[in-house]
Amino acid sequence: MNMSAWALPEYIEDILPAEALKIEMMRRRVLDWLFVNGYELVGPPLLEYVESLLTGSGGQMNLRVLKVVDQLSGRMMGLRADMTPQVARIDAHLLNRKGITRLCYAGSVLHARPSGLTRTREPLQIGAELYGHQGLESDLEIQRLMLQSLAIAGVGNIHLDLGHVAVFRGLIRSTGISPDLEMELSGALQGKDKAALKELCAGLKKQVDASVREALQLLPELYGDENVLTLARSALPSYPGIMKALDELEMVASELSPLVDTLAFDLADLRGYHYHSGMVFAAYTDNCPNAIAVGGRYDEVGKAFGRARPATGFSMDLRELSGLMSSDSHPRGILAPFIKEDKALEKKIEQLRNEGQIVIVALPGHENDAGSFNCDKKLVSENGVWSIADALI
Amino acid sequence: MNMSAWALPEYIEDILPAEALKIEMMRRRVLDWLFVNGYELVGPPLLEYVESLLTGSGGQMNLRVLKVVDQLSGRMMGLRADMTPQVARIDAHLLNRKGITRLCYAGSVLHARPSGLTRTREPLQIGAELYGHQGLESDLEIQRLMLQSLAIAGVGNIHLDLGHVAVFRGLIRSTGISPDLEMELSGALQGKDKAALKELCAGLKKQVDASVREALQLLPELYGDENVLTLARSALPSYPGIMKALDELEMVASELSPLVDTLAFDLADLRGYHYHSGMVFAAYTDNCPNAIAVGGRYDEVGKAFGRARPATGFSMDLRELSGLMSSDSHPRGILAPFIKEDKALEKKIEQLRNEGQIVIVALPGHENDAGSFNCDKKLVSENGVWSIADALI
Repeated sequence: MNMSAWALPEYIEDILPAEALKIEMMRRRVLDWLFVNGYELVGPPLLEYVESLLTGSGGQMNLRVLKVVDQLSGRMMGLRADMTPQVARIDAHLLNRKGITRLCYAGSVLHARPSGLTRTREPLQIGAELYGHQGLESDLEIQRLMLQSLAIAGVGNIHLDLGHVAVFRGLIRSTGISPDLEMELSGALQGKDKAALKELCAGLKKQVDASVREALQLLPELYGDENVLTLARSALPSYPGIMKALDELEMVASELSPLVDTLAFDLADLRGYHYHSGMVFAAYTDNCPNAIAVGGRYDEVGKAFGRARPATGFSMDLRELSGLMSSDSHPRGILAPFIKEDKALEKKIEQLRNEGQIVIVALPGHENDAGSFNCDKKLVSENGVWSIADALI
Repeated sequence: MNMSAWALPEYIEDILPAEALKIEMMRRRVLDWLFVNGYELVGPPLLEYVESLLTGSGGQMNLRVLKVVDQLSGRMMGLRADMTPQVARIDAHLLNRKGITRLCYAGSVLHARPSGLTRTREPLQIGAELYGHQGLESDLEIQRLMLQSLAIAGVGNIHLDLGHVAVFRGLIRSTGISPDLEMELSGALQGKDKAALKELCAGLKKQVDASVREALQLLPELYGDENVLTLARSALPSYPGIMKALDELEMVASELSPLVDTLAFDLADLRGYHYHSGMVFAAYTDNCPNAIAVGGRYDEVGKAFGRARPATGFSMDLRELSGLMSSDSHPRGILAPFIKEDKALEKKIEQLRNEGQIVIVALPGHENDAGSFNCDKKLVSENGVWSIADALI
C-alpha cells in the first residue's frame, strides 16, 4: 500500500462524522436565523475567471487564489478564496434591485496557503451582506447579526474589536502620496509594525505635514477602551471625516456593548483595507488567537462590477467555530432486525424515522453489531407488536 | 465596464435566491432522511493529491479532474470530481471499523468539462454509501434509500434501470483479453455502439469463442422488461457468475417494482465500470435525458486504499433535481419599522423570528420599500401593542 495514496495535502482535512454533524447543525441554525432576518440565500460558484474573482480586490487576494486553466476557453480560472466579492457581483448584476438587498451564503472557499499555522486551507465560509444602505443602522444590523450568529453557533465570551478605515483614509487623503506607499503604510499599520511605520514616515518628511506623520505613528497606540476615542479626538487632526468616524465608533459601541463581554477600539485595524471603506469589526473568543468572525463596510466593491452600492457584511468560518466547541455525543440509534415482509415491523420503523429517530436495520450476518452501529436501543416484538427496548443488556 | 469582469465560465452558474432556498431545503430533507436511516455525515475535502483522487478509478476520471499545483509541496492536487472514492478512503483509513459502516455526504464537485450539454460543471453531489456487507440486502437498502430520497426531493414518475456488471465481467473473464481491449469493449457497450462492438468482436475471432462473441454483441439488445432476463438465461453462456447476476436482478426488481413507475433491465449498462463490481442502477424521470440518480456495488474501490470492503452506494445532483422542480414562491416577510429603543417592538420582532417568521426591518430612508423587501405584511402599533397587518394596501 502506497502511503501517498491516501495522505492529504497539508492544511487540508477530512471532516469525520461527529464533527460533520456538528458543523451541519451549526450551519442550519445560523442560516435559519439569517433567513428570518430577511437575508436571501445565494450560491455563487466555486470557480470563476480570475479577472472576475479578483475584481476590486488587492494583490493579497491574488496570492491566495488557486488557479487552473479552463479547458473550454483557455482562460485562467480561480477557485474562490472569499465569497464576499462574488455576492457583491450577484447584487450588482444578477439581482440589480433598486432598494435594499439582503443576501447570505454558506460554502467552502480555498486558499493557496493557510492564513495561519492553525488555519485550514478550506474554510467553510458563512456570512451575510446588506446592500443599498449607507447609514449606521445597517452597520449595526450586520454587527448585531454577527454577534447573534456566534451565539447561535454556541460561542460564548465574545470580545469585539471596532475599527474605522476612514481614520487612516482621512489622514492619507490630505497627503497625495502614491497608492503603493499607501498600501505599504496600511500594511505596516495592520501588522502594528512600528519600526516600519517610523521609517516610512521619515521618508515622507518633505511631502507630508508633521501633524499627519505623527498621527500615523500614533494609530497603533490607539487600541483599547473608550479612552482611545478621547485621545484620538485630541491628538488626531480634526478633519471632518476623522471626527465623523470617531462619532460612529462611539455610537455603535454604545449599542453593542450589552451584547458582548468586552469591546475595544482599534484605529490601526485595516483588515481588508483594499475593499473596506468604513467601519470594520472583528470578534474574538477565548482560546483562539484568530478572529472568529470579521466584517465591515465596503461601499466600493460593486463599482468594479459597474454598480457602486453601499454595502456592509460579515463572515465567519464554521470549521474554526466547530473546532472551539466540544463535540456533542453523536445521537444513538435503535437497532431493528432484518425480517423479510414483516409489515408491522416496516411500519414501526417508518413511524420512528418520521419522528426523527435513527433506526438502523441489522443486515443478515451482522445481527449483533449493536455496538458498531452506535445503537443503545433495539426493536423487540411481543405478540406481534413491536416496541423499543434497551439494546445492551 | 469590462464585460469579462463578471461573465462566468461556460457551464458554471450562480444560484439565485429562489433556487438556492429550494436546493437548501432539498439538501436538508434528504440528509435528514439519510440520518434517520443510520447514515453518518462525512465531509471530505475539495482538494486532494491527484494520486489519491484517482486511486482505483480509470482514465475517464483523470480527464475529468481539474488540477492545480500545491504551493506547499510542489505536488499536483486535483479538485474532486466525485465524492464516492473519497468516502471509500474515509471508511478504509479514518474510521477503519470492523462492522457495517453507513456514511452520507453532500457537497460540490467540479468537472473539467461538462458531462453533457445540459450539465453544469459544478454538480452538488449528495449520496450515501454502505460498507461491509456483501449480500443483496444492502443493494436493496441503498436502492430503496435512493428512491425514497428522490421522492423526498419531490421527484415523481421514476423509471429505474437495473444492470449488473458481473454479466459482462463473466463473459470477459473466460477470454483472457487485455485490459485495454476490455475497456474498449465496455466503452462500446456503454455507448450502445453496435458497429464498434461488431468490429471489436471480429478482431477477437482467434482469441475468443464464438459463443462469447455473440453474447457480447447481444448485450445491447438485452434492454427492457422481465423478458430480457428470460432471453438472457437462454442466450448467454450459462457461467455461474452470469446466472447468479440474473437471479439477483430478478430478486431486486421484484422488491423495488412497487416503488417505481417503470423498471427495465439493461445488461449493457456499464456506467462506472472501472470501479463497479456488481449491480448498477440508474433512475430517470420525465423531461430529463440524464439519469437523475445513479449508483451500484463497487467492492473493489477500498482495495486501492489498502482495505477491500464490500460497498454499495448511490448519488445524485441536487442542482439537476432542483432544475426539474417548479420553484416554490419565496416565503414573504413582515416589514417592521425602524424605531430606536422601542422594547415592545424589539420583543415582538424577536418572538416572530423565533417562530420562524421572516421579519425585515425597514432601515431609515427606505420605509416604504415593502415591495422590494418581498413583504406582504407589516407590523403596526395600536395603543403600544404591536400586531401584524396587510402591507400592500
